[in-house]
Amino acid sequence: MSQPATGTEVHLFSDVSRLVERRDGRFDGDLSAQWTIGGKPNGGYLLAMLGRAAVLVGAHRDVIAASAHYLRAPEPGPVVVEAEVLRAGRTASQLSARMSQGDSVCVEALLTTADLDETSVPYWRGGLPDEGTVPYDGCDRLVPELPGGTRVAIMEQVEVRLEPGSSGFTRGSPSGRGELRGWLALPGDEPFDPMSLLYAVDSFPPATLDVESAGWVPTLELTVYVRALPVPGPVMVLQRAELVDGGRVDELCFVWDGTGRLVAQGTQLAGIRLG
Amino acid sequence: MSQPATGTEVHLFSDVSRLVERRDGRFDGDLSAQWTIGGKPNGGYLLAMLGRAAVLVGAHRDVIAASAHYLRAPEPGPVVVEAEVLRAGRTASQLSARMSQGDSVCVEALLTTADLDETSVPYWRGGLPDEGTVPYDGCDRLVPELPGGTRVAIMEQVEVRLEPGSSGFTRGSPSGRGELRGWLALPGDEPFDPMSLLYAVDSFPPATLDVESAGWVPTLELTVYVRALPVPGPVMVLQRAELVDGGRVDELCFVWDGTGRLVAQGTQLAGIRLG
Repeated sequence: MSQPATGTEVHLFSDVSRLVERRDGRFDGDLSAQWTIGGKPNGGYLLAMLGRAAVLVGAHRDVIAASAHYLRAPEPGPVVVEAEVLRAGRTASQLSARMSQGDSVCVEALLTTADLDETSVPYWRGGLPDEGTVPYDGCDRLVPELPGGTRVAIMEQVEVRLEPGSSGFTRGSPSGRGELRGWLALPGDEPFDPMSLLYAVDSFPPATLDVESAGWVPTLELTVYVRALPVPGPVMVLQRAELVDGGRVDELCFVWDGTGRLVAQGTQLAGIRLG
Repeated sequence: MSQPATGTEVHLFSDVSRLVERRDGRFDGDLSAQWTIGGKPNGGYLLAMLGRAAVLVGAHRDVIAASAHYLRAPEPGPVVVEAEVLRAGRTASQLSARMSQGDSVCVEALLTTADLDETSVPYWRGGLPDEGTVPYDGCDRLVPELPGGTRVAIMEQVEVRLEPGSSGFTRGSPSGRGELRGWLALPGDEPFDPMSLLYAVDSFPPATLDVESAGWVPTLELTVYVRALPVPGPVMVLQRAELVDGGRVDELCFVWDGTGRLVAQGTQLAGIRLG
């Protein structure tokens, strides 16, 4: 169901986030020019690569918590990723990881890893917002150009579909709620896993577009909790802005799999110019 | 208005979080046995000490984003805190910081610092929950013992007051909403600042107490955004649990100053045994 726009080459998440181990124990990565917004690689995509490094050097399978601070936006092209174990525990481990390009560190992250239990079921979910109600086919695919003309190459790869009630901003009439709801599918219909969920929580456009149009909204900090293993297929996403103050906005993100199970949560602080 | 229980010595936040620079550029701290829950120092209190180190070694005044991963719970007593600048920018800087006790690292954090603007006003706040409506004097002070008998020494120092609708768990009848609302005041009525706000977002008991009683709920990850400079006086707090799954719970925290301005937000992932 998720196909890139006609004539566009498919750049699979598993390919664009691949790491190759070097002799020095660090990893080579190659940031795809196709996974960019206005030429800048997506922040969740970068965090997913740090997650890969953490799992490669650590003893646990899944990233369950990751917090990234963004120092500089890297360009598409070669990067070096490294991770080190801070504490190796029986049920969980903590690691630090960073991505560099040339002599510059671009992203620093702390990660906690564990083995997600395939058999667990949610015990209590009374504090979660409701997931969306509009099916995948009832949502419109977001086109790869934002109001203001910023080209969003990544939208030719992933499929972001917005509920009709969330897509007003694409027609110049945002709802004012600061809330975007819809679906996300990976290129080539790759199934989600805890690694691509690190990307999923940063996959939607800024929820402030549902209030008013702004230029680049660069992520300063992104925290992700991976709560459960998702079933194959697209995921439902709710991206919500809470407060714009002092040139910064915070956004919450909720990701449910097709069965309605919450599989990941994100919170981010970003810079924004409004008013 | 905030006085420790009769006969209890006052341990000011500014004292218990104080750092003294060492010859090697690191800092000595002394974790107070009075700022503990069941004998373990509060996680937000530890993060505030990392925040102090970050501001001491960096070029900006205020921590605006901090993400901590908790490796081991330290004991009350001496700790060593260190921080290093990862990037020094014009308007913001990023740092890493850690707290060690003996040979063990207990907490690792990444921090972004900037200078909060005293003159800024909120531009849009449409996505925030409402702040509380019950005044400070209409809320009951939380006693320093949780259901189950865990002694909470810190509650003899800080004043946590819960709205009547949130305090059912203290009488054995939680509301089931997973939401605690009320006020927080520091010992000796110290005014809040961005440093003590790093503590404030972890000051309330686990919001899961409003669902059912659990033992120790150890914080695994805590992320804080400081959004504005607070006016003097107690702050309003909303602590909300969203999902208990796989032995872990996430909680959101919102902190408003007395004028109703949102000054800090927190999100945490913690371990929990329920069911």
